[in-house]
Amino acid sequence: MENFTFYSPTYFVFGKKTEEEAGKYVKKYGGSKVLIHYGGGSVIKSGLIDRVRKSLDSEQIPYVELGGVKPNPRSGLVYEGIKLCKEENVDFLLAVGGGSVIDSAKAIAAGTLYDGDFWDFYSGKMIEKALPVGVVLTIAAAGSEGSGDSVITKEDGMLKRGTGSETLRPKFSIMNPELTTTLPPYQTACGATDIMAHVFERYFTNTTEVEITDRLCEAVLTTMVKEAPRVIKDPTNYEARANIMWAGTVAHNGIVGVGRSQDWNSHAIEHELSALYDCAHGAGLAVIMPSWMEFVYKHNVMRFCQMATRVFGCHMNYENPEVTALEGIRRFRTFLHSIGMPINFEEIGAKEEDIPKLVDKLGLGDGKTGGFVELSSDDVAAIYKIAVNAHL
Amino acid sequence: MENFTFYSPTYFVFGKKTEEEAGKYVKKYGGSKVLIHYGGGSVIKSGLIDRVRKSLDSEQIPYVELGGVKPNPRSGLVYEGIKLCKEENVDFLLAVGGGSVIDSAKAIAAGTLYDGDFWDFYSGKMIEKALPVGVVLTIAAAGSEGSGDSVITKEDGMLKRGTGSETLRPKFSIMNPELTTTLPPYQTACGATDIMAHVFERYFTNTTEVEITDRLCEAVLTTMVKEAPRVIKDPTNYEARANIMWAGTVAHNGIVGVGRSQDWNSHAIEHELSALYDCAHGAGLAVIMPSWMEFVYKHNVMRFCQMATRVFGCHMNYENPEVTALEGIRRFRTFLHSIGMPINFEEIGAKEEDIPKLVDKLGLGDGKTGGFVELSSDDVAAIYKIAVNAHL
Repeated sequence: MENFTFYSPTYFVFGKKTEEEAGKYVKKYGGSKVLIHYGGGSVIKSGLIDRVRKSLDSEQIPYVELGGVKPNPRSGLVYEGIKLCKEENVDFLLAVGGGSVIDSAKAIAAGTLYDGDFWDFYSGKMIEKALPVGVVLTIAAAGSEGSGDSVITKEDGMLKRGTGSETLRPKFSIMNPELTTTLPPYQTACGATDIMAHVFERYFTNTTEVEITDRLCEAVLTTMVKEAPRVIKDPTNYEARANIMWAGTVAHNGIVGVGRSQDWNSHAIEHELSALYDCAHGAGLAVIMPSWMEFVYKHNVMRFCQMATRVFGCHMNYENPEVTALEGIRRFRTFLHSIGMPINFEEIGAKEEDIPKLVDKLGLGDGKTGGFVELSSDDVAAIYKIAVNAHL
Repeated sequence: MENFTFYSPTYFVFGKKTEEEAGKYVKKYGGSKVLIHYGGGSVIKSGLIDRVRKSLDSEQIPYVELGGVKPNPRSGLVYEGIKLCKEENVDFLLAVGGGSVIDSAKAIAAGTLYDGDFWDFYSGKMIEKALPVGVVLTIAAAGSEGSGDSVITKEDGMLKRGTGSETLRPKFSIMNPELTTTLPPYQTACGATDIMAHVFERYFTNTTEVEITDRLCEAVLTTMVKEAPRVIKDPTNYEARANIMWAGTVAHNGIVGVGRSQDWNSHAIEHELSALYDCAHGAGLAVIMPSWMEFVYKHNVMRFCQMATRVFGCHMNYENPEVTALEGIRRFRTFLHSIGMPINFEEIGAKEEDIPKLVDKLGLGDGKTGGFVELSSDDVAAIYKIAVNAHL
């Protein structure tokens, strides 16, 4: 196990009707003028924004609003939000939505306290300060409610880039699984895939002797294998929604990844897909991650056997472990398909002839990524190629 | 799943040589005059206290010291610490030791900012404020480095009582597994038992549909089943020590218990044993917890089957699940014995004829405890009785 620090200071408020406490927690964390940031019309139609407004009103906290966040959130709206926050002297960001809304709010929070272009932070500059962010979560997926991460897409060139800072961790996150029951099955499945991917990015490590984090990873993964099909079958199943929502936070607040090297190449490779085709991040991951696994599994067959047996319930083939490793990957892809996810390029509208463009945008050039297995541009192209032809 | 809040704001610093950063973190969390609180001579002999002093010196932070904390920490030393902190204007408690030292430091931290008798807090009064506490951990066991809990024994009557408050959560906890490699096997095993007990107290719940926390519980338990025998065999095994140390924190910072009713009767029943006989808490738990399991398993045979199959690798007997449930309990007791733990009264110097006294001190009278199964005084006596005769 490697040395590490772990710090997850977000105050989580979980359960039914908890959105009614939004005002109380904004007050607790010092907000005196709020920007309510949200996405499309669903949070308005459902009455959620009204309940949040009411909750702020009851604490006499004034607010302005900025909606319109899209999946794969854009820099344009971030600039708009920063301008609004500066003009209105906003001192607290309240994100009402899923990962895209939270990530956009984090970008605004950092950009408001910065004189330069906020995109600097997404080009390698360290974030030193940011306005406090609170969350009312409506989609279990990104884990952004408990993380210090944010991913934004720059319209100019459709560049999708991420940043991370302890200062971006939400002060509080209100998580009511009821709010996710109206989410369509496809988006629900995308979220489930993203959650599992966040764990797998940490699970495939070259650090040995990390049993506790291995087991915690497997805890989240087995929970998803049980609960995701239940919500696809019955979207109103509160209990399954609740398990998935909390699993999504545990998957990405850092606790399942401490003390070990991590991978994150599937995320990077996927980002180019969702940036170019504007497909859902989870859908892109469903296409990329099993393909990545097929490309790298020989690097550590036993680790894939561990996944196969502990997560997907395969029997171990002691005579030929590769059979078990590949069976685990096959079961993962079959599982993704069973919850309605795409598994190849065609199903997300991606095109084989775009592979050189995708590889080029990733920007490795003659270099290599880090991670479980270092990848060259040629390796990435090979993974995209596997994803083109992937089938059950 | 039940509604819950989860808040674990402690900054964990984990790994080799991290104790050298103690001064840096005291400074970061605002300490300007420190009480270094510790136990016996081992932290002095090992040079640990010297390294901590040096680390404070290098940040120019003055300190006073108070050693002498014993296992099952006593109120007498807490009073002494409070007096010292008030006289010396201490504003930061630095606990260097295991659970007893940390619990004692927490009591001093709360008592120093309180005009009344600190014991009020251990008699039901809410703690509203406390000095900040930092930790340099030397024993993996109590989980006190990440929790807001503290247990103190009052010499007058040997009353062992606990309290809990978010204000008692350590600001930082420095965890270097190397510091635990000199711990004798018996104490190591006591710690391992305590860690597993912290999980089982949460695992046995009447809340249904808590797969994510069930799986997280099982992650810690399976880790302990793998790693504890390794450190007993080779106390210098850093990797196994590291896995156990972090498992101990995860077991008790709250994350494996959210959203569900919990039990804690084994802890309460054990506390009377260690208070009366001054045995190690973990040793008492090894005697009590399997006995408690045998007494209550019929309340939910399937939950014990889940433990038996998922944690102890039993094969499920679908024709007669009770066989599997009992086999799981048998394996737990056998496991505890295998790492050198006592399993019955005689092995900890407890006497059958003291049972009425133990039951009386627990103070249920004609009432009942809460938990997985409500227990009357007669039930508690029956559990002690099982523990008298327990064998492999």
